[in-house]
Parts: sequence; structure tokens; C-alpha cells
Amino acid sequence: MPKVPFLPFSIFLGILGILCWGLTVYWSQHWLGSFAWDGSPKMFNWHPVFMVTGMLVLYGTAALVYRLPFSQMGSKLPWKVLHATLTLVAFVFVVLGLEAVFEFRNVKKTPNMYSLHSWLGLSAVLLFSCQWLMGFTSFLLPWTPIWFRALYKPIHVFFGSTILGLAIASCISGINEKLFFRSKNSTTPCPKLSAEAWFANILGMLILVFGVLVLLGLAISGWKRPDVNSQDIREPLLQEAK
Amino acid sequence: MPKVPFLPFSIFLGILGILCWGLTVYWSQHWLGSFAWDGSPKMFNWHPVFMVTGMLVLYGTAALVYRLPFSQMGSKLPWKVLHATLTLVAFVFVVLGLEAVFEFRNVKKTPNMYSLHSWLGLSAVLLFSCQWLMGFTSFLLPWTPIWFRALYKPIHVFFGSTILGLAIASCISGINEKLFFRSKNSTTPCPKLSAEAWFANILGMLILVFGVLVLLGLAISGWKRPDVNSQDIREPLLQEAK
Repeated sequence: MPKVPFLPFSIFLGILGILCWGLTVYWSQHWLGSFAWDGSPKMFNWHPVFMVTGMLVLYGTAALVYRLPFSQMGSKLPWKVLHATLTLVAFVFVVLGLEAVFEFRNVKKTPNMYSLHSWLGLSAVLLFSCQWLMGFTSFLLPWTPIWFRALYKPIHVFFGSTILGLAIASCISGINEKLFFRSKNSTTPCPKLSAEAWFANILGMLILVFGVLVLLGLAISGWKRPDVNSQDIREPLLQEAK
Repeated sequence: MPKVPFLPFSIFLGILGILCWGLTVYWSQHWLGSFAWDGSPKMFNWHPVFMVTGMLVLYGTAALVYRLPFSQMGSKLPWKVLHATLTLVAFVFVVLGLEAVFEFRNVKKTPNMYSLHSWLGLSAVLLFSCQWLMGFTSFLLPWTPIWFRALYKPIHVFFGSTILGLAIASCISGINEKLFFRSKNSTTPCPKLSAEAWFANILGMLILVFGVLVLLGLAISGWKRPDVNSQDIREPLLQEAK
């Protein structure tokens, strides 16, 4: 992979992540009708905001923690703890995002889990929870044998990228679905590129670019921690804390 | 990555690819109303079939050509030609798939390119065409300098996986969108899990599993050709043909 300077890349990615988050908040606030936590349609509007916050921005940030230049030297433990904390906070947002949509539908008495978006999204969340538990058990607790850590690490890395890919696909199918729902309730016979559709489609494409750039950041071999298969596997949390 | 036997993996993947293709044909034939090439709604039905054939099954097969055990020894040239041919055939299917949807909409006089699915899908196709041209120019023509081939190869590998990811997301958002279109034209006030929705959602999840398994096959380091950064870069088509 060609040499890419880390600092401008990460600044650009940071701005893009904030932009994705801000545009999602603006869409929910301006077009979908603002927020509430009362089972009304306004409760649904937390769903895109929490999902983009958790499964995209925080998850993407957590994935790139080990690529920070100052994380490359010394103990890996603080970065492991930061990675686990960021993904845990991301997971809390994801659970709140699910609660927002389930509670809204239960109050409205409409069925849950009928669309492919919901099947895909729930698969991503289930894989994410398994990934977090397996990561915590394998890399932060002392009683997991080293051979298992070495075996599991490439699986953790592979599913880390895969889950991000599923999250991007979930965001895109969710935005697409919401726009179709809204055009269904309008008087327009066929969905056209309204101002809102332009806005939400551009948001979807920015989410895609953000996700692909995170995957690119993970793929650049020069940014990987040199001791990728040795010290980090042998350094669980409780051992360090002794 | 743990050792996975290649043969059972590739047989399973082959069956899954045929299943994805067959279920897409069945959906289009049985539920969407069969096929025609006349600008009618039956012309649209070629769109999912050609896209799944080209951007998923053939593209995924082409990506894994270099993982075949008997491709690991001797000249890489026949495998390069096979890879380029399979992706070219895939590209022809993709162009026919685009033609099917554009012609259907033009005859029906409904707008094109309004949904996020269409933006994402067209981005995947544009990236795919750039990828093919760049791959052909870099690895099969003799006048591209070796330093450029070495520089471009990891980019080609990264975008190869990324384009497959975009294709999966396009398939999923497309199936989701088609089901919403169909529920919009029905008398049901809210889309429910009809037999067709169950069928198409399961198809979407199988497409996802197929794509993730192709990406897994690409990630398993033991299946990679050993001379990954040497001979293959130095062996363009016309040099070999002399």
C-alpha cells in the first residue's frame, strides 16, 4: 500500500465522522420532526442518530485506535482498554438505538423485524456483541491461554472489518427504507429526488466514504503496530494490573 | 487465521453461489412476473438476476481464482487471464443489468437514479469498471513499469474487496427497496412478512453470507500465493506471449 501520511488522513476522517453524525442529527431534527422518548414517531428519530453514533463513528474510531502513531510504542494495555471502552460506549448507543425503534413500533402496534434492513441490522448488532465479549474474554482477562489468543486474533480482526461493513450496509438500507416510507405517506405517485432525498442520499454516500476510509486505514500495512502477533497477545488486563 | 480446508469451503461456497443465483431467478420468475426484453415491468426483472450473476457470483469466483491450490505453482499468467476474463464477463452482465432497469424506467417515463440504492449501485459499477481497466493495464500489458505494478497491487486488492462489499450492500438495499415498492402497490397498510418477503429476505441474507465467505477466503493467509509480490508483478501478458 502506498505511503499515506497519518495525520491529514485522520483529521479528514475525523471531520467526515463529525459531518456524518451532524447531518444525521439535522435530518432527524429538521425533516423527521425532532426528538422525544415517549413512543411517538419522534422516538423513532433517535434510531438513526444512535446507530450512526455507535455503529459507525465510535466503532470506526475504536477500530483505528491501534493505528495512532503514539500507540505503537510501549505497553499496548492502555490502547486495549481504550479500544474496549470505545466499543462498549458504541454498544450502549446501539442498544438505545434498538430500544428507540422497538418501543416506537410497540406503541404504534406495527410489526417489528419485517424488512431486510432490520434482519441485517440485528445480525450486525448480534455479531458486535459476540465480538465484544470474545475480545474482552480473550485479550483482557488473564486465564485465556496464549494459543487461543493467537488463534482468535485474526478472526477478531476479520470480523471487526466485517461488522463495520454490515453497519454501513444497514445504514444505507435504513436511509433508503425511511425515504420510501416517507414517499409512501406523501401524495407523490413515485419517489423523486426531493430536497430531503438529496440530503439523505448524500448522507448515505458520506457514511459509505467514512466506512471505506476506516477500512483503508486498517489495511495500510505501514500503520500497523509492529509487534502485531506477539506482545499484545501475551498482555491481558489482570496480569498487567498485578 | 485458523487452518480451514480449501476443498469443503469452496464446494460450500459454490453451492451457496448457485443457490443465491437460483433463488434470484425464482423470485423474478415466480413473484415478480417472469422475463421479457421489451421495456415492460418484465424487463426490470432481469436487473436482479444479472446483477447477482455479475457483481456477486462471477465477481466472487474471479476474486478467489488465485486461492485455488493448483494456481499456486508455475506461471501465474493463465490465472491472470482467467481472472480478467471472469471479471469481464461479470461486467457484461452488470451492463445488461443496468440496461434492463434504465430501459424499463425510460419506457415507463419514471425518473432514474433517485434512490440511495441506485447511487450506491452505480458507484459500485463505476469503481468496478475503473478497477478492471486499471488491473488490465497494470498487470496484463507489458509497458507498465514494475514499480507502478508493485505500488498499485495492494490498491487493486483493497478495492477488489471494497467493490464486493458495495455490491452486497447494493443487493441488500435493492431487495429491500423492491419489497417496499411491492408493498406500496398492495392493499396492506404496512409491509408485513408475506411469503414473498420471507423468501426475498432470506435471499438477501444468503447473498450476505456468500459475500462475507468470499472476503474470508481472501483473508485466509495460508491460501495466498507465496510469490505474492514478485513474479506476478513482473509477468505481463504480452511479454509472456512473445
